[in-house]
Amino acid sequence: MELKEIMKLRRAVNFFDPTQNVTDEELKQILETATLVPSSMNFQPWQVIVVREPEAKERLMKAAMNQTKIVEAPVTLIVLADKDGWRAGHPTVEKVWENLLTLGYMTDKQRSWFEKGPEKLYGGPEKSLAFAVKNAAFFAMAIMLAAKDLGIDSHPMDGFDHEAVREAFNIPENFFVPVLIALGHFDKSKTLMPPKWRKSWNEIVWQYI
Amino acid sequence: MELKEIMKLRRAVNFFDPTQNVTDEELKQILETATLVPSSMNFQPWQVIVVREPEAKERLMKAAMNQTKIVEAPVTLIVLADKDGWRAGHPTVEKVWENLLTLGYMTDKQRSWFEKGPEKLYGGPEKSLAFAVKNAAFFAMAIMLAAKDLGIDSHPMDGFDHEAVREAFNIPENFFVPVLIALGHFDKSKTLMPPKWRKSWNEIVWQYI
Repeated sequence: MELKEIMKLRRAVNFFDPTQNVTDEELKQILETATLVPSSMNFQPWQVIVVREPEAKERLMKAAMNQTKIVEAPVTLIVLADKDGWRAGHPTVEKVWENLLTLGYMTDKQRSWFEKGPEKLYGGPEKSLAFAVKNAAFFAMAIMLAAKDLGIDSHPMDGFDHEAVREAFNIPENFFVPVLIALGHFDKSKTLMPPKWRKSWNEIVWQYI
Repeated sequence: MELKEIMKLRRAVNFFDPTQNVTDEELKQILETATLVPSSMNFQPWQVIVVREPEAKERLMKAAMNQTKIVEAPVTLIVLADKDGWRAGHPTVEKVWENLLTLGYMTDKQRSWFEKGPEKLYGGPEKSLAFAVKNAAFFAMAIMLAAKDLGIDSHPMDGFDHEAVREAFNIPENFFVPVLIALGHFDKSKTLMPPKWRKSWNEIVWQYI
């Protein structure tokens, strides 16, 4: 589908048809497309927990202000943003360096110079959180668009208790959960509310120089 | 253009052709498309500084590790993520409540209940930063895709000194700058490097339940 069409059609859907599935094949396509987004130094500090089982959905719903869309949607993704995803020794980070060497983005001699960057740019609690959340949000945004491209609706949620979600799914401290994404098909027996207001150019552009 | 095509063609371009412009008309189209992304409670805590003037580009480049693409690209956006963008009294927040009333998302009686949410969900330094960065990143991601849809290349950067950028453009403390986005056209006299490695399903899915 055309990007502009997807951008207009994508709506945060509150009611999912529990009889319509999202298959693993579809989910794979969605994640494969989404993972093409850029990330800081290509570190891709994102992972997901795929929540499908009724028991797991109940557990997640309880930690998320009892939002029933979690049990109605066939699948909800818990998006994980890795605050350690820039550290030396992290398996993805090491893989990125190897890939940059192989592709010729850097030489062996430049490696130690490259390796100094992340600590400077993403070290410290504020910067590592921003690093993780920003990149995981790029990925999450693309998930919602790639889903709509397959005719699959979504609902991004941040109305949840972070500690309760962490506990319910044994999520380690290095991960921050920026968003849950319910995926499914809009329940057509319900009415979709009209689109909400959006900022105009003048409200977006803070300074033009 | 088709979303999948855009996702594949969008590359972080290092060399921009300084003779090819991005017009304000194009920039308006890009921001108008991008602002359709979802945000927490529709608060849209994003703004941009549009950097076009040679002097302003130089100033930005100096705060961003002297990355020459900033002066070569016709325009660079400084993306601002508003950490206060959920607070009662914020003009956008008040506009959102009015809009929800008008469209029937909430009644007058529910308003005080709605108004209690943001403080609980986004209050405190960690949560307000994550709120701002996540939503601004949704917007930034869509900017890069909407640009490519118009044949415009981009480069997201976080290799910059946050305090230096803040100082150079008088950015108040409520804003965090998650990313700079250079926009322009790839300099075809240069060679585009091959696409970098991306995580596979197994590396993305942390838990499947």
